Amino acid sequence: MNQYVFGVDIGGTTVKIGLLTKDGYLIESWEIKTSKKNSGENILPDIAESINEKIRELSLIRENILGIGLGVPGPVNNDGLVYVAVNLGWKNVNVAEKLQIFTGFKVKVGNDANMAALGEMWKGAGTGCKNIIMVTLGTGVGGGIIVDGNVVNGAKGSAGEIGHFRVEDNEVDSCACGKKGCLEQYSSATGIVRLAHRELEKNKEESLLRDICNISAKDVIDAAKYGDGIAIKVMDSFGFYLGKALAGIACVTNPEKIIIGGGVAKAGSILINYVKEYFEQFVFDNCGNICFELAVLGNDAGMYGAASLLLN
Amino acid sequence: MNQYVFGVDIGGTTVKIGLLTKDGYLIESWEIKTSKKNSGENILPDIAESINEKIRELSLIRENILGIGLGVPGPVNNDGLVYVAVNLGWKNVNVAEKLQIFTGFKVKVGNDANMAALGEMWKGAGTGCKNIIMVTLGTGVGGGIIVDGNVVNGAKGSAGEIGHFRVEDNEVDSCACGKKGCLEQYSSATGIVRLAHRELEKNKEESLLRDICNISAKDVIDAAKYGDGIAIKVMDSFGFYLGKALAGIACVTNPEKIIIGGGVAKAGSILINYVKEYFEQFVFDNCGNICFELAVLGNDAGMYGAASLLLN
Repeated sequence: MNQYVFGVDIGGTTVKIGLLTKDGYLIESWEIKTSKKNSGENILPDIAESINEKIRELSLIRENILGIGLGVPGPVNNDGLVYVAVNLGWKNVNVAEKLQIFTGFKVKVGNDANMAALGEMWKGAGTGCKNIIMVTLGTGVGGGIIVDGNVVNGAKGSAGEIGHFRVEDNEVDSCACGKKGCLEQYSSATGIVRLAHRELEKNKEESLLRDICNISAKDVIDAAKYGDGIAIKVMDSFGFYLGKALAGIACVTNPEKIIIGGGVAKAGSILINYVKEYFEQFVFDNCGNICFELAVLGNDAGMYGAASLLLN
Repeated sequence: MNQYVFGVDIGGTTVKIGLLTKDGYLIESWEIKTSKKNSGENILPDIAESINEKIRELSLIRENILGIGLGVPGPVNNDGLVYVAVNLGWKNVNVAEKLQIFTGFKVKVGNDANMAALGEMWKGAGTGCKNIIMVTLGTGVGGGIIVDGNVVNGAKGSAGEIGHFRVEDNEVDSCACGKKGCLEQYSSATGIVRLAHRELEKNKEESLLRDICNISAKDVIDAAKYGDGIAIKVMDSFGFYLGKALAGIACVTNPEKIIIGGGVAKAGSILINYVKEYFEQFVFDNCGNICFELAVLGNDAGMYGAASLLLN
């Protein structure tokens, strides 16, 4: 008798839904639109309807479904209460309770970045590990901390907010959070571009980047691969700050592995080279000498991780 | 029917043993010498003997004893394996298994700094909390991280080694660990004294500290309380570095409370003033606005925490 779980990853534009076996085999995945009207009050009913429809379509037996796991873009506590999800219009919504009422299934909820970490541990770059740090380098920097196989949510659901780990005391620009010197200002896609503009202004050297109108993080990384001096300097700063932050985080939780995901990680293993050297230089020896890997599940990680919440 | 637990805190010189009720009432505590001969192989038999003697002396019924909790000065994994305890001469000793054989009781083991954190959460400054950071400011800087009521040990038992959290990129002196810019170099007793000597050399101002031969951390803190300019500068640096490290750690685990213990914390709440301002300035807002408290159990914290391991 097969048992199934649904994994759901709610984003600002689309909701990703997956039907998986208990062993983590993805049977099918699909997307629905995220409806933001009326403070996002249709999102959970829409998800319930889509799941119920899929159950009918595939003639699944309800008793064989272990439940629904949900990843949400905001802080979540251990009981499935979402404190706030700005992109969805939610504030203090008990998502677990509500979706359970709409579907009749057991529901577990987590923060989306934490779910991505859990997904990579279950079926991605972290299989076999129980203690990992996952850092997601996209427009911003997100993080998920796993200790003894469980996600760390923290007192107000804001554990793993490593994008706002302070790494520089002399920054003059402000981060989106209002503070100065946050990791996100250096090691996100936006951060890499910011550093590139700063370096191009300060440093009069020739650079491939000078011919590009609208520099992207990918442009900088590609130029660094080509040996462009200014791009290499920028990527060295990227690695210095990320390595420093991860070294600090590693002496807090002493992980087995660090996984790097998000759009920026598509650049490949060159990223790890930039980070790992500084990490080992800065980390307490007992917490160092650990493996860095690139995430492998891409945008599916959150769906896998959310589904895995039902397996404990 | 009363149920009892033994809490044991193994130090380099003495072993502290306590007999507590299941509710955490300390019936009696005593000390035995830590025997370091033959790579510390007598330590566990000595503890077993002392506990058995106490059981006979008080005519306790063995069935009413839930077990023994142990705090050890070194990294410990979740199964009670001590990787290394330099001060005891231990290397890869399965302490839980051995003491269980010697006594017949269930045995649980943790790192001493982690046990102190657990003790403060059970019966000290952290009662009612489930997510805390405890930082111990003594000769060095130690730490204990509690998440959802459980100690974080990490993959190699080295979680919470926050004394080696990097806080300064421009340090020229080396930390005991061999790296440069560790928190311990600024916010331990030794660190405060080091900063004081540095400031006295650099800054030609008058200072009460100039009349003292062998400056201690207490001298510096006392002078700061008197309004001594140089001492205030030193304590401001102390607070800056500790506040910065704690802000970073808080965005990893999002605690409810931060507890400051150890010899330096005897200076009282003035310490919190120095730290909290920088902490709030540097921390991600969702992880900030939290309570700082001084530890209250002193040297008994580890014994309480170790005992509490038996209650899960």
